[in-house]
Amino acid sequence: MSQKDVLRPGHVCIRVMDLDAAVVHYTDRLGLIETERDDKRVYLKAWDEYDWFSVVLREADQPGMDFMGFKVRDKDALERLAKEVENFGCQVERIPDNELKHCGERVRFEAPTGHMFELFADKEFYGNSTGTRNPEAFLEDVKGMGAHRFDHCLLYGDDLDGSVKLFREVLGFDLTEQVVDGDLQIAAFLTCSNKAHDIAFIRNPEKAKLHHVSFMLETWEEVLRAGDIMSKYDITLDIGPTRHGITRGRTIYFFDPSGNRNEVFAGGSTWYPDHPTITWDAEQLGKAIFYHDRQLNERFLEVVT
Amino acid sequence: MSQKDVLRPGHVCIRVMDLDAAVVHYTDRLGLIETERDDKRVYLKAWDEYDWFSVVLREADQPGMDFMGFKVRDKDALERLAKEVENFGCQVERIPDNELKHCGERVRFEAPTGHMFELFADKEFYGNSTGTRNPEAFLEDVKGMGAHRFDHCLLYGDDLDGSVKLFREVLGFDLTEQVVDGDLQIAAFLTCSNKAHDIAFIRNPEKAKLHHVSFMLETWEEVLRAGDIMSKYDITLDIGPTRHGITRGRTIYFFDPSGNRNEVFAGGSTWYPDHPTITWDAEQLGKAIFYHDRQLNERFLEVVT
Amino acid sequence: MSQKDVLRPGHVCIRVMDLDAAVVHYTDRLGLIETERDDKRVYLKAWDEYDWFSVVLREADQPGMDFMGFKVRDKDALERLAKEVENFGCQVERIPDNELKHCGERVRFEAPTGHMFELFADKEFYGNSTGTRNPEAFLEDVKGMGAHRFDHCLLYGDDLDGSVKLFREVLGFDLTEQVVDGDLQIAAFLTCSNKAHDIAFIRNPEKAKLHHVSFMLETWEEVLRAGDIMSKYDITLDIGPTRHGITRGRTIYFFDPSGNRNEVFAGGSTWYPDHPTITWDAEQLGKAIFYHDRQLNERFLEVVT
Amino acid sequence: MSQKDVLRPGHVCIRVMDLDAAVVHYTDRLGLIETERDDKRVYLKAWDEYDWFSVVLREADQPGMDFMGFKVRDKDALERLAKEVENFGCQVERIPDNELKHCGERVRFEAPTGHMFELFADKEFYGNSTGTRNPEAFLEDVKGMGAHRFDHCLLYGDDLDGSVKLFREVLGFDLTEQVVDGDLQIAAFLTCSNKAHDIAFIRNPEKAKLHHVSFMLETWEEVLRAGDIMSKYDITLDIGPTRHGITRGRTIYFFDPSGNRNEVFAGGSTWYPDHPTITWDAEQLGKAIFYHDRQLNERFLEVVT
Repeated sequence: MSQKDVLRPGHVCIRVMDLDAAVVHYTDRLGLIETERDDKRVYLKAWDEYDWFSVVLREADQPGMDFMGFKVRDKDALERLAKEVENFGCQVERIPDNELKHCGERVRFEAPTGHMFELFADKEFYGNSTGTRNPEAFLEDVKGMGAHRFDHCLLYGDDLDGSVKLFREVLGFDLTEQVVDGDLQIAAFLTCSNKAHDIAFIRNPEKAKLHHVSFMLETWEEVLRAGDIMSKYDITLDIGPTRHGITRGRTIYFFDPSGNRNEVFAGGSTWYPDHPTITWDAEQLGKAIFYHDRQLNERFLEVVT
Repeated sequence: MSQKDVLRPGHVCIRVMDLDAAVVHYTDRLGLIETERDDKRVYLKAWDEYDWFSVVLREADQPGMDFMGFKVRDKDALERLAKEVENFGCQVERIPDNELKHCGERVRFEAPTGHMFELFADKEFYGNSTGTRNPEAFLEDVKGMGAHRFDHCLLYGDDLDGSVKLFREVLGFDLTEQVVDGDLQIAAFLTCSNKAHDIAFIRNPEKAKLHHVSFMLETWEEVLRAGDIMSKYDITLDIGPTRHGITRGRTIYFFDPSGNRNEVFAGGSTWYPDHPTITWDAEQLGKAIFYHDRQLNERFLEVVT
Repeated sequence: MSQKDVLRPGHVCIRVMDLDAAVVHYTDRLGLIETERDDKRVYLKAWDEYDWFSVVLREADQPGMDFMGFKVRDKDALERLAKEVENFGCQVERIPDNELKHCGERVRFEAPTGHMFELFADKEFYGNSTGTRNPEAFLEDVKGMGAHRFDHCLLYGDDLDGSVKLFREVLGFDLTEQVVDGDLQIAAFLTCSNKAHDIAFIRNPEKAKLHHVSFMLETWEEVLRAGDIMSKYDITLDIGPTRHGITRGRTIYFFDPSGNRNEVFAGGSTWYPDHPTITWDAEQLGKAIFYHDRQLNERFLEVVT
Repeated sequence: MSQKDVLRPGHVCIRVMDLDAAVVHYTDRLGLIETERDDKRVYLKAWDEYDWFSVVLREADQPGMDFMGFKVRDKDALERLAKEVENFGCQVERIPDNELKHCGERVRFEAPTGHMFELFADKEFYGNSTGTRNPEAFLEDVKGMGAHRFDHCLLYGDDLDGSVKLFREVLGFDLTEQVVDGDLQIAAFLTCSNKAHDIAFIRNPEKAKLHHVSFMLETWEEVLRAGDIMSKYDITLDIGPTRHGITRGRTIYFFDPSGNRNEVFAGGSTWYPDHPTITWDAEQLGKAIFYHDRQLNERFLEVVT
């Protein structure tokens, strides 16, 4: 096991039922940039990301997440992690170079919660919107909410213990925050960086569910603007603007046209590997999730894709 | 009729069922300063107000609003307005000087919606917390949400047409925004200043109801902090942080320990007497009130005191 | 004398040496909208203003301000004020209807500090960018700094006492803040509204000088963005982002391509006619003007147009 | 060489000429918490840090930095890095456990620029101000500027190439941004995390100079408040509030009572090891450092301690 071989969430492939509507949502409203298409998929990136894509939209009959991919340090790390994931008991599939355009070989496996994950070491450099030589310090013409980057996913599944063990012991993630009901862990927030979370899991009877895909903003003002954009374009709001107890992030949740939940958020605590895990008791779950309301709306708990 | 004889909302007297709990709420949480007591009432002001008080808490069996008072330019304006209010058809009562401590004579009358209002010309100068000679530009140690001033009330009552006529034609207020259902006005936002509203009314079967008492903050960051304070001290949130369509204000609603609804908000449009009234159609009421959700929670519509 | 007959600063006519460069500056950078041209002038308004224009650019050999105009309540107010200004000792000139397109008759006079002012009662309605029926609560596509409205001017001139007397006693303005050197008033901030200032004067040996034309933003975030826009387009910064002691506003100063100083700012205190004037001592002038630096740069003191 | 054995800047020891004045500055004004004293030193931490201290103040005849310490992952990492630093050519000194109270053994060495650095693996846990079980998401009563954590130092010295080589090749830091004059690197920003910098060096004829010690805030609003606190307590401002081109951070610089420069800042770009280094040309140095002014004040360039 080696910490820090996994760099970050590198992409998520989202199933959408109307590709054109989804592209409008993720570009004009959320603010991503279309960088590629193939016969079935549209590739997107945020303005402050360098790699060729971080979101892939695939037209399908049902919404949800096809897979989430993590970028690893290099090919050696990829090989070593592939072996360790297999030793952990996951079946590993190799997806050849360029099956996703501009992306190197991917190592795919199913986590105990039923979600498909991938590791990859290479993706072509596209460049961010400000450049790397005497760059401007801001982007003047952001579109819509102006998402800065794809940040994390929150996933629902049954074998929480298994997926948490896989991410901590094999992939080197740290447990930054958790919700417990007595001895039972019911939610786990995991990071491979200094961020408050790079992925999170909630214990849930059904496998392989997507709760939300999250994108980073920079300020609480931008969270307000995100809400304003939702109103102007009649995007279904789930909840917010508000604050999370967990991670301290300022947040707003909404749905894409296919019913996949999105989050945009700003701020949040910084993680270091020597920090203690923050623990929330289940009876404080409302406050943990929505710090201001201190109660969960049913939609937030039950609507997953 | 003379515009601009009414300067601003000068005070509101709120009925509370537990005076001690109410004082903690309005001082330590909302951030007001206690400036006076008499045998039955506690007097409060916000840190950036000059007059001796703007909120009076009175212990009672039921929550609600006893009366709202407006400060007028001077004694001449007071006398002239008293006469005009009487001519309009309201019974006028004179409350002697110092019945509310530090406050001059008040002219009290009942509006067609059943609410009690007062006009007064004099209130003793207490001073704000930064002073008037080489003042600091901010207050370092605000308490709780740090409300800057008492701003307005939103009231529910039956004879909306009557109260709006009284405020526009007699008291010189302008109609900044309204909600209409066909030809029927169902909400009216009225100002005696450059503010988006100094008082507002909603048409409602029952007379004399208080929807909320509102206090001004300066920024959207302060609205976030207000929500944070609510969570820390387990104050019941109604809705927010969010944005209003009407007035554009950034807002959060909550309840005092007696169930009276409070608002703190920041920002909002500027009014001039030559501006057009902004009109919202009833089917857009959700968006008009809560711009992000675009729907009203039942509590917001039905809970009044 | 009648308070509140003057509604607000209605327009300013700025001399620029290169009209095309000025139009780019005031539209693409500051965010105003071009609404009209005549053979020598370009007319502009901010996105949240209703009247046809608030800024007029005139090509000339020297930068500076031709005149500043105030909108008054109606024709009666215009006639009465015209007479009172004349009685005060100013020569009054009538500029006929439509000399500035879309603007009614203007009453022009020279103030004791040598500045030309105008009063007018009528200007055609153009409409703001969000409309008056179920409007959106924000403007998605602001240009550049996104100025919300023309706000005020700061002017330098010799007979400060005369101009202050004219604005207070004839035009009904209030003195919100002042700087004094012993008994000598050296700066006066005057309002005809609830704003912290609608016009300001600094005592200065030379007559008829323009220090800056100011435009309102809504938030401290927007002040940051204004600075960012300056950097991207190489606009000369004067000072900021910073805070004023006087008015408490958050501010940034810069120059148009002809050397006229502009300000964009957000926030600031609210004025009521019963409020005390805030007084700053000359030895606190640095802090009064630039609250953080507590010293004036020479350019700010000496560069006027 | 092993990446990620160095976790973060763990402490800085600052020389101050009047200890009492320094303690007031770093606690009541900057917002740190005093956690320990010994006969010559005062230990401080920020409210959101867990370890016992991050700043040590030592009374001395001259201001400046005694040393900066980095926390490493564990004792193995400490031993391995100690060896590699020695192999690099630095003389290594062992400071015994508890010489700085609550801190384990430290490995001290002099970098080629003349600065003293330390590595340590253990420091006692003190806890942050919100706790780890169902914590509040904010701290209500921050003091002064409310610094969240000690963030980084900027150091001036002669052998820039040597120190950069040491940090990159031995300590595993990445070069996030740099300023170059043709082929000559004149500034280097280095990180051991996802932060835009954990340490930075500027090429300078004299060895071992401190330019500033930097503390993190969370928002641009907090940067404004920091400026306000400076004004209220007459703390010497260097420059700001403004934006950096390098790192994009929002910032304000000021001096402690001994003349050591402090920074508080918010925001900034996120680093990943596969990101390209951002390069600034020397002729863009003004914009790189102060994005709005696009010029450096002489004080910023020349005053170091």
